[in-house]
Parts: sequence; C-alpha cells; structure tokens
Amino acid sequence: MKPNFSLRLRLFNLNCWGIPYLSKHRADRMKRLGDFLNMESFDLALLEEVWSEQDFQYLRQKLSPTYPAAHYFRSGVIGSGLCVFSKHPIQEFTQHVYTLNGYPYMIHHGDWFCGKAVGLLVLHLGGLVLNAYVTHLHAEYSRQKDIYLTHRVAQAWELAQFIQCVSLGLTGEVGWGQGLRGGQVPTYRRAELVREERLPHQPGSPSHTSKKADVVLLCGDLNLHPKDLGCRLLKEWTGLHDAYLETRDFKGSEEGCTMVPENCYVNQRELEPFPFGIRIDYVLYKAVSGFYISCKTLRTTTGRDPHSGTPLSDHEALMATLCVRHSPPQHIPSPSHGPAERSPLTSILKEAWTELDLGVAQARWWATFAGYVIGLGLLLLALLCALAAGGGVREVAILLWTPSVGLLLGAGAVYLFHMQEAKGLSRARAELQHVLGRAREAQDLGPESQPALPLGQQEGDGTEEQ
Amino acid sequence: MKPNFSLRLRLFNLNCWGIPYLSKHRADRMKRLGDFLNMESFDLALLEEVWSEQDFQYLRQKLSPTYPAAHYFRSGVIGSGLCVFSKHPIQEFTQHVYTLNGYPYMIHHGDWFCGKAVGLLVLHLGGLVLNAYVTHLHAEYSRQKDIYLTHRVAQAWELAQFIQCVSLGLTGEVGWGQGLRGGQVPTYRRAELVREERLPHQPGSPSHTSKKADVVLLCGDLNLHPKDLGCRLLKEWTGLHDAYLETRDFKGSEEGCTMVPENCYVNQRELEPFPFGIRIDYVLYKAVSGFYISCKTLRTTTGRDPHSGTPLSDHEALMATLCVRHSPPQHIPSPSHGPAERSPLTSILKEAWTELDLGVAQARWWATFAGYVIGLGLLLLALLCALAAGGGVREVAILLWTPSVGLLLGAGAVYLFHMQEAKGLSRARAELQHVLGRAREAQDLGPESQPALPLGQQEGDGTEEQ
Repeated sequence: MKPNFSLRLRLFNLNCWGIPYLSKHRADRMKRLGDFLNMESFDLALLEEVWSEQDFQYLRQKLSPTYPAAHYFRSGVIGSGLCVFSKHPIQEFTQHVYTLNGYPYMIHHGDWFCGKAVGLLVLHLGGLVLNAYVTHLHAEYSRQKDIYLTHRVAQAWELAQFIQCVSLGLTGEVGWGQGLRGGQVPTYRRAELVREERLPHQPGSPSHTSKKADVVLLCGDLNLHPKDLGCRLLKEWTGLHDAYLETRDFKGSEEGCTMVPENCYVNQRELEPFPFGIRIDYVLYKAVSGFYISCKTLRTTTGRDPHSGTPLSDHEALMATLCVRHSPPQHIPSPSHGPAERSPLTSILKEAWTELDLGVAQARWWATFAGYVIGLGLLLLALLCALAAGGGVREVAILLWTPSVGLLLGAGAVYLFHMQEAKGLSRARAELQHVLGRAREAQDLGPESQPALPLGQQEGDGTEEQ
Repeated sequence: MKPNFSLRLRLFNLNCWGIPYLSKHRADRMKRLGDFLNMESFDLALLEEVWSEQDFQYLRQKLSPTYPAAHYFRSGVIGSGLCVFSKHPIQEFTQHVYTLNGYPYMIHHGDWFCGKAVGLLVLHLGGLVLNAYVTHLHAEYSRQKDIYLTHRVAQAWELAQFIQCVSLGLTGEVGWGQGLRGGQVPTYRRAELVREERLPHQPGSPSHTSKKADVVLLCGDLNLHPKDLGCRLLKEWTGLHDAYLETRDFKGSEEGCTMVPENCYVNQRELEPFPFGIRIDYVLYKAVSGFYISCKTLRTTTGRDPHSGTPLSDHEALMATLCVRHSPPQHIPSPSHGPAERSPLTSILKEAWTELDLGVAQARWWATFAGYVIGLGLLLLALLCALAAGGGVREVAILLWTPSVGLLLGAGAVYLFHMQEAKGLSRARAELQHVLGRAREAQDLGPESQPALPLGQQEGDGTEEQ
C-alpha cells in the first residue's frame, strides 16, 4: 500500500418504512428508491424497515447491475427488516439478534415479533478490511412514558459489546474518557500496554491473520436522540464518531434531523415538541490499526424526494462520503487516566447500570405479580369445577371457564416472559458492573501503578453477582 | 517474552447435572465438587448444568480462596446453566444465546426454557490472550428419532461462527480441508494472503490493538458424538483440535467416553447401544498468532468420584493439562487448494446445508399446518357462537368454547414459533450457502489464479436468497 493511499467511500442509509398494507405508497417509494440508488451508485446502501422479503427481492433485481452483492438479515417472526446492497463483494456476513426487544403482548407495537438485530458485513476494499454494521433498535412510542427505555439501553449496550467484540477487540481500543476524535490514535487500556511490552511483534509471525477490522462503520435507525443515554453509551464505549458532528460539509435538514415536520408521512403531532424534527438515524465510524478516517460530506434529504416532490420514506436518508487514508506510524500515547478524565465514560456506565437495575426490579415485580395471578387463576378454576359439578349455577360456571383458562395461560406467558427479561437485563447489568469494577480498581491504585495492574481482579468480589 | 516461553494450563470441565428437585444427591455432589476443585487448584474450571444460581453462589463462596474470579452466564427463563471459576483474573466476558433451541411446547424436555448459550471469557496469562468458551448444546433425547437434530446443527454452526467471528477473524485462519493438526501453522484463506501482500506490517503502527486471541479454548457438553455432523462442522470450520485425539497421555474411561455405564446416575437403557458409553463432552483448543499448543495429559473420571465411591455427576469430568509455547517465525505455506483437498470441509458444509434445508421445509410445513388450524378454529368458534345464541344445544356450545379458544391460541403460538424457526434456519442456511459459493468460485477459477481472487463475489448470484 502506498503511503498516500486514500479511499473514498460513499454510503447511503435509509429507514424505508416498508410495512406491507400499512405504509403509504410503498411500491412507488421502493421503485423510486431503486432508481435513485442506481443513479447515485453508492459503494454501500444500508436499509432498515424493509419488512417484506418481496421488497428486498424487487430491489435486489433492480439494483443487481450497480450493486452485485446484497444480503437480507432474517430473524424473529417477521424479520429484522435490515438489508444491504454493495457495489463490492461481501466477504462475510453475520448477525446478532438482541436479547431484549419489547413485549410479545404489545402486539400493536410489533417490535417483539421483528427480532430486531444488528447485521455485520465484512468488505475488503483495496487491502482495507471494512466491518459495516447496520441496525435498528426498538422504537420509542412515547417519550414522556417510555416503557421500552430499559430495553433500548440494553440493546445499545449489546450493540456496543458486539462491535467491540467482533471488530475492536474485547480488551482493546477504548481508554477511559479520553475523548477520542476522528483519526486520532486512541489511548489503550492498560492490559494491552502491558501485553505490548511483553509481546513485541515477531517479524514473520502470522499475527496478521488474527487481526480485526481496519475501519468500523455503523449505520441505522437507533431510535435514540443524540443526548439519550443509549446513544452516549454506544459512542463512548466503542469510540465511534458521529458523521454529523465530525463533518465540515453538511447539507440537509436543520440540525441533521432524520424525521422532520416537512415530511408528509410523519405524524406531525409526535414531532410537536421538536420544531426542527428529531435526529435518530446515524452514520458512525472509526478507524483502527493506523488508519485515519474522516467524513468529507454529509447530506440528508429534507422531507422530499431528491427529484420529485414526495419523500422516499417517513425518515430522511443519510448520504455520507467518508475518506480513509493511511496514518503514519505514531507514538502510542501513554495513558494518563486521572479520576477527572475517567469520569465521562464512568458516569455514563453508572447511569446505564442504574437504568438496567431499575429494569431488573420492574421485570421481577411483573414476574411475581404474574405468579400471584397464576395462583388465583388456579384457585378460581378449582372453584368453577366444583360449582359445575355441583349444579345450581352450572351454566355460569361453565361460561366462566374460558376466561379463567385464558387468565391462567396469559399469566403463565407473562410470568415466563418477565423471568426471561429479568435474566437478560441482569446479564447486561453484570457486564456493566464488571467494567465499572475495573475502572474503580484502576482509580484506587492510581495512575503511577498502572503498567503492572492486572485488570479485572474484582471479578471475585461478589458484588457483581446478585 | 523469552523464546523458551512456556505456559502450562490445567483445566476442568464437567456437566454437573444440577437440576433442582430432580437430580439425585445434588447438594452432596456440589459440596464434593467444591472440595475437589479446591484441592486440585486448576487454572480454569468450566461447568455446565448449574441450573440453580444458589448452587453457583455456594460454589463461588467455597471456591473464592482458590478461584478468585467467577462468572455465571444468565439467559432464557431458567438460565444457560453455564458458569466458570478461574484462578486468574477475568478480563472480559460476554455470551451468545443460540437462535434456535428446541420447542417451547416440549415442556418436558425443557431446553427451550434454558436459553442455551455459549459463554466467553478473556484471560491474560503471562502476556498471552486466552479466549475460553464454555457451552452446552441442545440435548439428544432419542438417537433414532432425533427431532432436535437440525437445531443442534444450527447451534454448532452458530457456535463455530461466534468463535470464528470473535477469536479467529471472520475472514481468517481456516483454509479448505487442509486437515490442520495441533500446533501447525495453518494455511490461510486467499483474501488474507492478498491483504498481506498489499498491507505489510507497519512497524510502530498500533495494529496489535485490534488483534484477536492467541489461544482459543472450547469446553462443554456438545451433546454430539465425535462423528456427528455438528461436531465435524464445528471442528472443521474453526480448526479446533480435540484434546482426546491429540494427547499422547490419556487416562480414564474407555474411548474417552463422558457418559459411561459404570456411572450409577446414568440411564443404563439409553446407553445400551454403546457398550463403552458415549463421548459428548469435549476439550477443544487451537493456537493462533505464532503460538503452539498441545495437550500434555487428559484424564476423565470413570463413573466414580476420584476419591469416594459415588460419581460427581451423571457425566464424567474432563481434566486436561495444556502446554502453550512460542512458535518460532515460520513461513506461511502458500495455499494449494485442489478440488480433492477442498472436499472434506466442502462436503461437511453441504451436508449441513442439506440438513438445514430440510429443517426449513419442515418448519414451514408446521407453520402452514398451524395456519390451517387457526382458520378451522375461527370457523368453529363462529359456529359455536351462533349455536349458543340460538339455544337448543346451548350448553354443549358453551362447553366447547374453552377447547376451541385453546386450540386457536395454541395454533397461533405454534404458527409464530415455527415462523421464527424457519427464519432462524434460513439465516444459518444462507451463511452456509455463502461459504459454499465462495468455495465453488475458488474451485472454478483454479489454484493458479488464487492470489488475485476477490472472494465472496457470488453474493449477488441470487441463489443464496430464497
């Protein structure tokens, strides 16, 4: 690779609002989306809410000359709605379905049935390994009384952990609150530095084969405003940069909003508290391994189709031009984690822990409540059996059987579901607690003793397991 | 790290058979297990079927002086049953819950409620990064008529992909049917070689931070015999070596079996076709990045407690001593994938694809059948409503309401479940198809054109998406 290596990457992201029978002008919008993507010829188009596999097949056929590679991520009962079209060959793909994703009995919201997920594509572009993630988190149906807040925080954490795990190295990359900026060489966690001291690179040894991504990209509808806990958690934990905040050349909707009142498909009442709209769709990126990435331009649609008058979806499309270039070898800055510096990430992790802890308590409360209802239902059923056998109010007893059995089965399902929810939330809480424990331990020992510090020793302190 | 660096790792694995109220002598066995683990002081003890969190907490407390780090992997309604005790600090942990894991209406089998999973621990041992996985796949209740075969194959594939994704690099490591042996430097897939040519290591660049594991270890109850499709798929796709087959110093049960007729807790009738027992618990390992790993000794219990007379579980424990040492820089062998050489892995992948394809068809059949039952149930309910309103057979009509509503709800649940199953199996099938497509393409182009071959181009050929 030449020292002046440079790669330009043009991306498209859109939540397509493709609900069969419910979304307006779906077929027409899909057609126009296909035309637009063909005309613009992006490197990568990442789509959400393509709920119908027929729509994907239609787009696939239409786009195949320009985007020969495509994949549809299947999950849940309905599907994740995620798909991707690429001008370049897809080396590998995989997906991770979120453990928690709403409640099955909230049928009118439907998120549970989708099996919301994060999809990963690995592309090799001119010798560069690009890991591109596409996702869609649980919808926010009410900002005032958001019953899905905990699930979205858990999803954001799971997403961040998945990216960290697959692309960035579980023990690598992000330091404590160092405020990484685009293209900077990040500071490393201490364990890595220790390892580097002991394990110098062996020339000729095949360590490159176990290398992760050079560039990580995350696009999608996070259903999170930029200041929301889930969004801050995701960005801080992975060190991903927000294209809207990083670019110097932005054109599009006010404040980069991706749901705007100008869009005729948007429910205007929901946007009333936000005069410019809301920003919930993102292009996030990061370069590792001595590469430098920046966002040259970012465009959004503005409530209208780029060409005709009607919009492509109820969300606005994001179009980014990213530039990746080789970064010259740099000195790895030694970590200088003082208590003050560590605070931003630590406080976010603590906030997330508190949110999940509340969620665990609430899930357990529902499971207990359902347990009592099951007991009551069994009692009622026994009583009705006795009445029906005895005669007298026999007809009434028989009539009440159906709702009693229904009550019992319903409560049983609610019990099982909330038990599972409590387990899922406990898992995320334990992971956060582990991370916070490491931070606390590092803080207690102070910066001067860092290089010899074996992280993670608090595992056995008993506080994490509850 | 000195050139004569060497690390000895002592491991313990046991499926503990810890079902509350059902497993015999549970409390006593847990106590003796704790005593044994304390006495032996392994580096890592990986346990399955610790279904009760109280048992984990008991062991945690008992083992804390010898094993200061511990983690319990929570998932599903009951839990994954997986836990781990480590003498060394745990740097990170995460888990992946299998998409498919039996049927919720098979309550007497219970696997669905457990949320079977794979847990991952990252340990740093003397500058070496060890990724230790522990797992437990769906049980096999009948070998003659195994209705969970497809799910276990899908789980084995998901497990292999998870290990590949997190520890080995999605596009790295395993070549086509090269028959890796313990400690050999593997051949690499072509894309990696291409990348290496274009991307020489930049001295001083921080590429080490995105490095994956040095040593990968997988322990657990796979519920798969060594020749079963799932086991072959897992081993071939990840390149993991089987401690029992690799070691020169084995002592224990005949043929390394982990469920033996000598064990008094084992159902003797189930083992009738297997006079020595069955081998379904494994210690698998692999070294990457210029390390060499071998299994010095492997021991199993033989149906009795190592000290007293009664066994610790219905499974036998595995105790392995692994030795990791630095491997001198070696030449990366150039790939020589002829069609003949490629065949073992390809044929396994094809076999798995066929199995999953059958599973998809069956899941769709069940969903369709349930759809018809829903229609019939609705019709019946309408008829009963009409009869009840009309009088005459009123009482009978009312009496039949409950089973009709039950039928409807039951069929609805079965429909949703099998739709989800079909999606999950389709996903695994698509991943296998992608891999097979790459192999086919490589084969078509022949070995001489390999270095310039961009893999994965078949993505857009339309055959993968069905």
